[in-house]
Amino acid sequence: MNLLPPIAEFDLRRATLCQLLHGLAAGQASPVALAEAYLDAIERINPQLNAYVSVSPSMMREQARMSEQRRRDGVIGRLDGVPIAVKDNFDIAGWPTCAGLPGPGKPAEHDSHVVGRLRASGAVLIGKTNMDEGALGAVTDNPHFGPTHNPHRHGYTAGGSSGGSAAAVAAGLAVAAIGSDSLGSIRIPASYCGVFALKPTQGEISARGMAPAARALDSVGLMARSVDDLTVLLQVLAGYDAEDPRSRRRRVALSPPDWEPGKLRCGVLADLPGLDVQPDVIEVFEAALAKLGGELGQRRTVDFADWHFDRARRAGLLLMEAEMLGTFATQLANTEQPVSPRFRAMLDYAARKTAADYAVADRVLDAATLKMRRLFAQIDVLVTPTTPQGAFPLDGPVPDSQADLTSFANLAGCPAVSIPMGTLPNGLPIGLQLLGARGSDLRLLELAAVWSATLDAAPEYPVLA
Amino acid sequence: MNLLPPIAEFDLRRATLCQLLHGLAAGQASPVALAEAYLDAIERINPQLNAYVSVSPSMMREQARMSEQRRRDGVIGRLDGVPIAVKDNFDIAGWPTCAGLPGPGKPAEHDSHVVGRLRASGAVLIGKTNMDEGALGAVTDNPHFGPTHNPHRHGYTAGGSSGGSAAAVAAGLAVAAIGSDSLGSIRIPASYCGVFALKPTQGEISARGMAPAARALDSVGLMARSVDDLTVLLQVLAGYDAEDPRSRRRRVALSPPDWEPGKLRCGVLADLPGLDVQPDVIEVFEAALAKLGGELGQRRTVDFADWHFDRARRAGLLLMEAEMLGTFATQLANTEQPVSPRFRAMLDYAARKTAADYAVADRVLDAATLKMRRLFAQIDVLVTPTTPQGAFPLDGPVPDSQADLTSFANLAGCPAVSIPMGTLPNGLPIGLQLLGARGSDLRLLELAAVWSATLDAAPEYPVLA
Repeated sequence: MNLLPPIAEFDLRRATLCQLLHGLAAGQASPVALAEAYLDAIERINPQLNAYVSVSPSMMREQARMSEQRRRDGVIGRLDGVPIAVKDNFDIAGWPTCAGLPGPGKPAEHDSHVVGRLRASGAVLIGKTNMDEGALGAVTDNPHFGPTHNPHRHGYTAGGSSGGSAAAVAAGLAVAAIGSDSLGSIRIPASYCGVFALKPTQGEISARGMAPAARALDSVGLMARSVDDLTVLLQVLAGYDAEDPRSRRRRVALSPPDWEPGKLRCGVLADLPGLDVQPDVIEVFEAALAKLGGELGQRRTVDFADWHFDRARRAGLLLMEAEMLGTFATQLANTEQPVSPRFRAMLDYAARKTAADYAVADRVLDAATLKMRRLFAQIDVLVTPTTPQGAFPLDGPVPDSQADLTSFANLAGCPAVSIPMGTLPNGLPIGLQLLGARGSDLRLLELAAVWSATLDAAPEYPVLA
Repeated sequence: MNLLPPIAEFDLRRATLCQLLHGLAAGQASPVALAEAYLDAIERINPQLNAYVSVSPSMMREQARMSEQRRRDGVIGRLDGVPIAVKDNFDIAGWPTCAGLPGPGKPAEHDSHVVGRLRASGAVLIGKTNMDEGALGAVTDNPHFGPTHNPHRHGYTAGGSSGGSAAAVAAGLAVAAIGSDSLGSIRIPASYCGVFALKPTQGEISARGMAPAARALDSVGLMARSVDDLTVLLQVLAGYDAEDPRSRRRRVALSPPDWEPGKLRCGVLADLPGLDVQPDVIEVFEAALAKLGGELGQRRTVDFADWHFDRARRAGLLLMEAEMLGTFATQLANTEQPVSPRFRAMLDYAARKTAADYAVADRVLDAATLKMRRLFAQIDVLVTPTTPQGAFPLDGPVPDSQADLTSFANLAGCPAVSIPMGTLPNGLPIGLQLLGARGSDLRLLELAAVWSATLDAAPEYPVLA
């Protein structure tokens, strides 16, 4: 329930997307005022946060004016006037798509499918957000564009690879943001920054015009300040696109049979310490499960002993690296503005692996699909911490296991939602992940909305000075 | 229309599956009599033809007796008593699955999905048919099991890799046969042997328990003596299998909107000579199109100039070879009974290619999917010769282009049917291929049935001495 605050208290930068839509409809906010509030905040705050790599105030103002005109004319889209950010691996016609790589980048000829749908819904595009180099990482400490800082603590990672998107939403520099998620790149930064995120069923949102990482794993992902916001965004963006070979016509049943209240079968992983999940994360996780209590329905322990997290990690990375050798061939050949040694080394690894190695890695997707089918024949939802740890210092070591709890959803093609579940002893947020069978996106969101209300763990969004 | 001949003329070995079902129902034939007729023919004819690599008379007789009992009890399956052959890359519990490779083979623990469905429908399993080594070829001149001869001409290829299946159906040694098709392995031998074949939409029939070639391309395929037979077999075998990661729940609409008579949009490839299609094949093809006349509806020339057949061929083969390095690792390591130098060289080629090469080859699948979607937005069916040439002598050179007209359906995941379209000047049969959009299998079969009746080109099946 989004109660509309009195107009004096209506904070344009703390409001959720749904609240803003109410505010816009009620005349408590105007698209132009919104755009100015966000532009002002970006100008003040982005230099210290580095969430955006490019913003066009003139474009944003023009879109806001047009939205205002549409509101006057009474013909508005679903997101009319709402400022939304996109990660810099989505094409916006006329803008270079850098994908975190060096070089000037060639201006895109067409809008990506997602940007086209956002425009058609009346959303106001703010600009493009920072990311890991080539989306290959989960830190957003970009060697060419600089690090994005966690809005909750300067000097700490925002996570990645969609770190700029998460930081922008958490710091009140965007109402919502679009990112991509190939092994966890939406959910990891959402966990670290305390925002809400959805990685939909593979193929539900067209990836046309998004720089591919590994097409079989890539999902367009969504970030926002409430679960309801994610549902609205999914409704605007999902659907079949004949021009995206991985896009699929929607199944008629979007979900397994309705869950009966109290009869939910909720799976929980058996051995979190064995999976390198940090003790403080387990503590917050157990406290969240205790608070959810009966809402979890029948709690069942799920055994992932047959799942080799390290092998899955290596396989997923190889699929990405091998494909990126082709995707980013131009950037790799640019010796004047070279990619980082780390990025080159990761892709060189793939260049040394054989086609047979790739075929073996690709089989992990089949194994994940089978495991997912068997799993969700037994349970309705699997619950895990989103990440094995919270945000860490940008100048410290990078844990290897960041994507271990998220990558299964990509390998199996199933949907996953991350919601804030509490605060770690160091004061930083951490996420709870819900996974379901392919096509159960809306059911997962329904459940996540109820649980979010119970947990009430979304951090106060830091409206930085 | 299958008119039932008087009982005296009822030829168990020339009858189609549908005719046999009528005959069995009418008491003109019994499962045991059928089994004996086929066993007798196999004993006499298989030594010269080499269609089967293994047959178990005792198993076949036992199944026939049980079928007879079921018929007496009045509780029968859809194919009860019908003798069917399977290619030797499908598991039959207790039998070794050799897949054309040397070595004794380990007895399979379980029936493949297809064999299980055949058993459940009451079909009588005859045995396993010969194939190219590891399914990597289209000649069925197997270095370990010997060549399969074309039933229409000894010393000529039956095509491959499902050559044994095609020869068995054409020579009256099986009513129908199951094979596999990764680049054309069902349709090529069907074209050379003058039988009817269906490669269904990718994922429509579960491939569980079939030795994989390239999982993204592999389809279970069907061969029989009429289009109606293929339809019955598809109805028995198609369906979702949760244990096959590539199996897909069926789309509700199995086809594009119904075709209005006379409004069919029929695509024909523009430049057949440029695709290495032999002049005598083009002549038969044009004659067939002329005979079909108005049944083709609006004939439209389809441009495949943007389709690089040679690149697609190389990509498809690399996907197969790379994956087979893992699938057949045991056989490759067996130095006492080594694989052929040709097979090893093909797999070694993949071992020398990088993971990036594989990723590039894999993109051809996306390109094919897009091309298929655009194509079948413009036309309802694409018609081609099934193969660029007819059967050739086993001791002559093997053409490179054998699978060029068939492989597109595998790369794009769409269905294809092959029906006999006429006779080449040398007296051998040649097939016509119909391709449609994913999920249009039943519509394609409907059209193929009408066209087959018009063409009336199925060769007299040689009931060899």
